[in-house]
Amino acid sequence: MEFPKSRINEVQRGKKKASYNQKEIYDILDSTEICHIAFLIEGRAMVQPINFGRFEDKIYLHGSLRNRMTQAIIDNELVSLNVMILDAMKLTRSAYHHSVNYRSVNIFGRSLELHDPNEKLKGLAAIINHFVPNRWEHCRPPNEKELLATRVVEIQIETASAKIAQGDSKDNKSDLSLPYWAGVLPVRQKIGTPIPAKDLDKDLATPQHILDFLNQKK
Amino acid sequence: MEFPKSRINEVQRGKKKASYNQKEIYDILDSTEICHIAFLIEGRAMVQPINFGRFEDKIYLHGSLRNRMTQAIIDNELVSLNVMILDAMKLTRSAYHHSVNYRSVNIFGRSLELHDPNEKLKGLAAIINHFVPNRWEHCRPPNEKELLATRVVEIQIETASAKIAQGDSKDNKSDLSLPYWAGVLPVRQKIGTPIPAKDLDKDLATPQHILDFLNQKK
Repeated sequence: MEFPKSRINEVQRGKKKASYNQKEIYDILDSTEICHIAFLIEGRAMVQPINFGRFEDKIYLHGSLRNRMTQAIIDNELVSLNVMILDAMKLTRSAYHHSVNYRSVNIFGRSLELHDPNEKLKGLAAIINHFVPNRWEHCRPPNEKELLATRVVEIQIETASAKIAQGDSKDNKSDLSLPYWAGVLPVRQKIGTPIPAKDLDKDLATPQHILDFLNQKK
Repeated sequence: MEFPKSRINEVQRGKKKASYNQKEIYDILDSTEICHIAFLIEGRAMVQPINFGRFEDKIYLHGSLRNRMTQAIIDNELVSLNVMILDAMKLTRSAYHHSVNYRSVNIFGRSLELHDPNEKLKGLAAIINHFVPNRWEHCRPPNEKELLATRVVEIQIETASAKIAQGDSKDNKSDLSLPYWAGVLPVRQKIGTPIPAKDLDKDLATPQHILDFLNQKK
């Protein structure tokens, strides 16, 4: 499925790097821990990082009851967020052609605060399983008090686009003989060896869902 | 120097994690490649990733002349951006206490388009040297044509705040005996081995400023 291009989601610059493919967009979303969400405070555009979950064509956020950003997102309804994975830094002989390889996704949707406890639990499960796949089955679900203290926001994805740059560094022909280094510095997010909590039962080995996550991030 | 707290920059939730210390804030800014900037399009808050530079209390962005985001940032004057470094994922026995260690900075300022070629060059040097320290001396500076094709935006930092979470995973006492793994997964951005451009002179070794950058990122 492709998201139809509209004035909101169409990539304006670097159209060759654009993708509207839902699977490609969701794959990028699902491989990041944090998104950056835009919101309005007194008419001023602001941005904050927040962790999130996805289930089908819905994104879930959570926050405390008094969180200013969550409140603004609920009040404004129209939501825009971005996730970006930096894959490489590209260095060229000319300052002008320095650039990066990246995968960036913009999501546009409508927010809705969830009140039904079962709907809230579904959203929180999506957030925890986005954090580490299958984690929800391997932790204690929120109790009634915790659920009441947590605001859960559902964002119905209306449209989206990705911008993906992959490739080698590229200089002008006339610059090739300049005595400057050019090339690519690969960038990768690495997850280190898990550090068990000090109060963890010594007999509890690192469970399979965490080993799987580490493998996936290798 | 501390940024004074105001309605704009004061951290509302998790005040113990807040910092207004200029040096701490600039250190976080300087150790990231990409910021996320908020802007308004037809009254809607949007967010995009962009690389940037800093020199003293000014941030520099650049873009092509026809870039919608750059235009919006110049038009709106009041600018807000965020950088965020994810340091660890914290897993707890309860779903409720899952969280992350991070360093997040919010910058609030005023934008100004630069027109003077020398001012523009100063901004571009800050961007290239933010990308890789000392890179500006080791590449060809923009020529007149390139400079004309590049828009450079200066953001005067008016106020800022950081939010920094570092520590161990923490469960409720009543959850400690639950049979779930708890602990920390460290997260690190790694720069891989430089890949020289295919057309690079074979005699050109990886220069010192890149080796220094790799060392700093180890």
